Amino acid sequence: MMRTHYCGQLNESLADQEITLCGWVHRRRDHGGVIFLDIRDREGLAQVVFDPDREDTFALADRVRSEYVVKVRGKVRPRPAGAVNPNMASGAIEVLGYELEVLNQAETPPFPLDEYSDVGEETRLRYRFIDLRRPEMAAKLKLRSRITSSIRRYLDENGFLDVETPILTRATPEGARDYLVPSRTHPGSFFALPQSPQLFKQLLMVAGFDRYYQIAKCFRDEDLRADRQPEFTQIDIETSFLDETDIIGLTEGMIRGLFKEVLDLELGDFPHMTFEEAMRRFGSDKPDLRNPLELVDVADQLSEVEFKVFSGPAKDPKGRVAALRVPGAASMPRSQIDDYTKFVGNYGAKGLAYIKVNERAKGVEGLQSPIVKFIPEQNLEVILDRVGAVDGDIVFFGADKAKVVSDALGALRIRLGHDLKLLTCEWAPLWVVDFPMFEENDDGSLSALHHPFTAPKCSPEELKANPATALSRAYDMVLNGTELGGGSIRIHRKDMQQAVFDILGISPDEQQEKFGFLLDALKYGAPPHGGLAFGLDRLVMLMTGASSIREVIAFPKTQSAADVMTQAPGAVDNKALRELHIRLREQPKAE
Amino acid sequence: MMRTHYCGQLNESLADQEITLCGWVHRRRDHGGVIFLDIRDREGLAQVVFDPDREDTFALADRVRSEYVVKVRGKVRPRPAGAVNPNMASGAIEVLGYELEVLNQAETPPFPLDEYSDVGEETRLRYRFIDLRRPEMAAKLKLRSRITSSIRRYLDENGFLDVETPILTRATPEGARDYLVPSRTHPGSFFALPQSPQLFKQLLMVAGFDRYYQIAKCFRDEDLRADRQPEFTQIDIETSFLDETDIIGLTEGMIRGLFKEVLDLELGDFPHMTFEEAMRRFGSDKPDLRNPLELVDVADQLSEVEFKVFSGPAKDPKGRVAALRVPGAASMPRSQIDDYTKFVGNYGAKGLAYIKVNERAKGVEGLQSPIVKFIPEQNLEVILDRVGAVDGDIVFFGADKAKVVSDALGALRIRLGHDLKLLTCEWAPLWVVDFPMFEENDDGSLSALHHPFTAPKCSPEELKANPATALSRAYDMVLNGTELGGGSIRIHRKDMQQAVFDILGISPDEQQEKFGFLLDALKYGAPPHGGLAFGLDRLVMLMTGASSIREVIAFPKTQSAADVMTQAPGAVDNKALRELHIRLREQPKAE
Repeated sequence: MMRTHYCGQLNESLADQEITLCGWVHRRRDHGGVIFLDIRDREGLAQVVFDPDREDTFALADRVRSEYVVKVRGKVRPRPAGAVNPNMASGAIEVLGYELEVLNQAETPPFPLDEYSDVGEETRLRYRFIDLRRPEMAAKLKLRSRITSSIRRYLDENGFLDVETPILTRATPEGARDYLVPSRTHPGSFFALPQSPQLFKQLLMVAGFDRYYQIAKCFRDEDLRADRQPEFTQIDIETSFLDETDIIGLTEGMIRGLFKEVLDLELGDFPHMTFEEAMRRFGSDKPDLRNPLELVDVADQLSEVEFKVFSGPAKDPKGRVAALRVPGAASMPRSQIDDYTKFVGNYGAKGLAYIKVNERAKGVEGLQSPIVKFIPEQNLEVILDRVGAVDGDIVFFGADKAKVVSDALGALRIRLGHDLKLLTCEWAPLWVVDFPMFEENDDGSLSALHHPFTAPKCSPEELKANPATALSRAYDMVLNGTELGGGSIRIHRKDMQQAVFDILGISPDEQQEKFGFLLDALKYGAPPHGGLAFGLDRLVMLMTGASSIREVIAFPKTQSAADVMTQAPGAVDNKALRELHIRLREQPKAE
Repeated sequence: MMRTHYCGQLNESLADQEITLCGWVHRRRDHGGVIFLDIRDREGLAQVVFDPDREDTFALADRVRSEYVVKVRGKVRPRPAGAVNPNMASGAIEVLGYELEVLNQAETPPFPLDEYSDVGEETRLRYRFIDLRRPEMAAKLKLRSRITSSIRRYLDENGFLDVETPILTRATPEGARDYLVPSRTHPGSFFALPQSPQLFKQLLMVAGFDRYYQIAKCFRDEDLRADRQPEFTQIDIETSFLDETDIIGLTEGMIRGLFKEVLDLELGDFPHMTFEEAMRRFGSDKPDLRNPLELVDVADQLSEVEFKVFSGPAKDPKGRVAALRVPGAASMPRSQIDDYTKFVGNYGAKGLAYIKVNERAKGVEGLQSPIVKFIPEQNLEVILDRVGAVDGDIVFFGADKAKVVSDALGALRIRLGHDLKLLTCEWAPLWVVDFPMFEENDDGSLSALHHPFTAPKCSPEELKANPATALSRAYDMVLNGTELGGGSIRIHRKDMQQAVFDILGISPDEQQEKFGFLLDALKYGAPPHGGLAFGLDRLVMLMTGASSIREVIAFPKTQSAADVMTQAPGAVDNKALRELHIRLREQPKAE
């Protein structure tokens, strides 16, 4: 092997030992007649000193430049007392360079690596092979590797089998748009890239595999607003003969063990919260419990007021009126409130009513608000008591369709938590349970809240009678306001699966055409089964403190779903298209 | 948890203990007034006895049928002496059934699971979720999971980082046809699914990752003659600052450790053989060394004979004349020789000359052959001596272009080894090294024998001077005549990479257009690097003794690249095609 040690491994215990390093010239300095090269490799930096005694080597060291690839032989020695660098793993020693070999030269890189520089993301992605040399980027991908390794070990130890499912598969009904692959051997037909291995993992349970996992690539051809990627990675898990409690226990143990092993962090037991409570108190099915603010329902106090903005939603069964108290924020300037009003507008809210509680003892006089004049004093008192308002607080109000109020005040709650630095802890995991089976579309039809293979908590007959209020056996793991993973007990009986398809308006013919193989599988002895899928990219992002999932993916796509480094997607010649039995709809512009 | 034990875990140490099993009814027998159910789960079978004392349970046990999913509570007890079944892990005990619950019913499966039956592959694939219940199928996929787990552990322990590379990527020059994915956001452009992560892993080395691995899905849109799949899995490895010897040592250690751990088998040190020797002695660059037969070159003895079939190739610098001695096979009937003649015809051979050595002491008289009359006796003697012919042997001859002779006699050698049961051992691994850089096409142009990123053993100048004879720094691991893995030291200097592209006839413009990012990477400080990729499917196939890679893939495609279970590929609606800016070339037939 060319090297004897990684740079970051050198320390005082190696003093007087001859070692060989291989790596990149991170920094070159010329100081007091000697040359200092900081050599960088995967594990860190080491300082190598070349003095003029060794003429040829010194001359070569004088010629190397940043990012040259070199091999150095030398002797480890303690640094002089004043020169110790506590910020560097090998900072107590340096290497006296005996031999230097240039393994490859380097042109001046498009952005410097030896000091922080704010480089545009497009440039970083175009030269990803240089960007990934930055120690902070390399550290994230190293941690990602440790995370998957820890997860695999846990699942192996718990009897899970790693089984690969196909990437060239059939269009699935996960809701998002599929990536399609034209078939050469079946003219006019297409494969779809999987949005998840959902049905395959269920079939593995029908096949008796009992415990399955896979760290699986999934694909969605969606517009990449938000922090999404066309291809992403899922920790995909399925089990047989376990109920919700068992699966939650197993996977919670996995995440708790992972945080302990990789970050030395004890997450403790995760609380459970129903979907209903999460929406009521936090306006979200993935509440960030680090944030102490809570929504409080006050419709009962406002249904009779003359102010229609409040009384309308308060009387509407699908409406909601809620308050959000922010302690000690009454001094918030008008401009800030205007800003928040605009913010909640993004979620469909038509305004943002508020009350500043200056001095409750003074009654209405002590309140500063455009709305108190519309509310009878006794109702006002009940509301302020209910939210626990004290002097110095501000209370925001939302009144609209329930979804708009929950979305808007839920988002405002998160925003306020960050703006006012209200977070009470670093990590707040929980399970959200008791989701509804369906959500209502604008046209009154129903969609599956999770996916159509989720088991309900009731019988097929009860489900058909009251689909809109039926609860599912689904569960989501939430961490710091991010959905880390979601899963459910699945339907394992054919009659129940058909009932759900019926409710979703899928005709028997379509059921057979699209899901015939699943219905077949359910009739030949499907065991009770259920599972869960974690978003690996998002998990790594949280654990590394990255600001985007692009930071934890080695070669991510841009927002327009392109790879600016390899220039993908690219043009294809006509012969290839002919073989695939397709042609372009519009000819691309002449090049 | 529903079950306390897996069926296969039950044994005498649990006697008198109450246990609960969950699984499938593998077999149901009614014998002497009691009912026996063999319950099957992932870990094996257990026999449960229901007697009429417990009336309701007995009645239910009487109603269950094959493949019903059940939960059984009962007590473990030793079987009566005569009833012990040594072929069953739990065969020393049985379970006295107390309670029985039917978790799901099953229709009669399309093929029986309780006894061996020869079912057509199409049916097996259509009902893969039943086919995979067969213990021998489940065992193969369980072993596959153990194999990947063992490999990951080895690579983790040796400092390799698991890094995911993209699936939606740019068309690569690996030679085979790419699967293409139309881009919605870039009209007229296409992603390609990767044939291997080759360039991405090289870029990870340029990025300083030092040791990378990935168990990676790869894709080739080729016709599936032979035993191939459109998507297959590669154990993909790349390292920096290591030479051939280091990489061979590391990966040989991995495979040796794997065989020891999973099959308890010592493979020993792998011999090394040059490409030239492998072709000369075995007519193949992946020789099966379990087979003792060898090719022997005899052109020197035949260049002057009048028989043009021999003298032509013997005098042609691109020709080859070789002999293959088969010990003790002189009694082979004419019909068998005709069959082999037809067989070598598949490899382009125009005939199959032979000499049966009945009694060497008698000279030509003792030989039975249509060709001896064309060969002077002294040459005949040299040839027979050289191949070591003794009485009772048959010697086959090939004379043609070198490639035809090597292919034909190489294949005949393998065929004879199996037909005549000549194999001398069970496992014969080796490394083949010193491959040529290029192979000549019929038009005289050169193609890369491995891929164009393989480093030669010489300088760019020497390479340009004599490309046809240059050797590469490539190495293949071969096991039992199968190429398990192949790799090389890669080119890490831009001038060398350009020299190879030039030799391959890739114009500078095309180099920039297709490989600009690689050439960029090589100029910004690329380290010396190299690696290897193993075919996981083939490795698992060898280790499980499977007869096809479809046996070791959970959901494989058929020979026409279709999934008969999910009916993929399938039709797609026009809206989806419009969004992808493509249309069908021919309309599919009306349905």
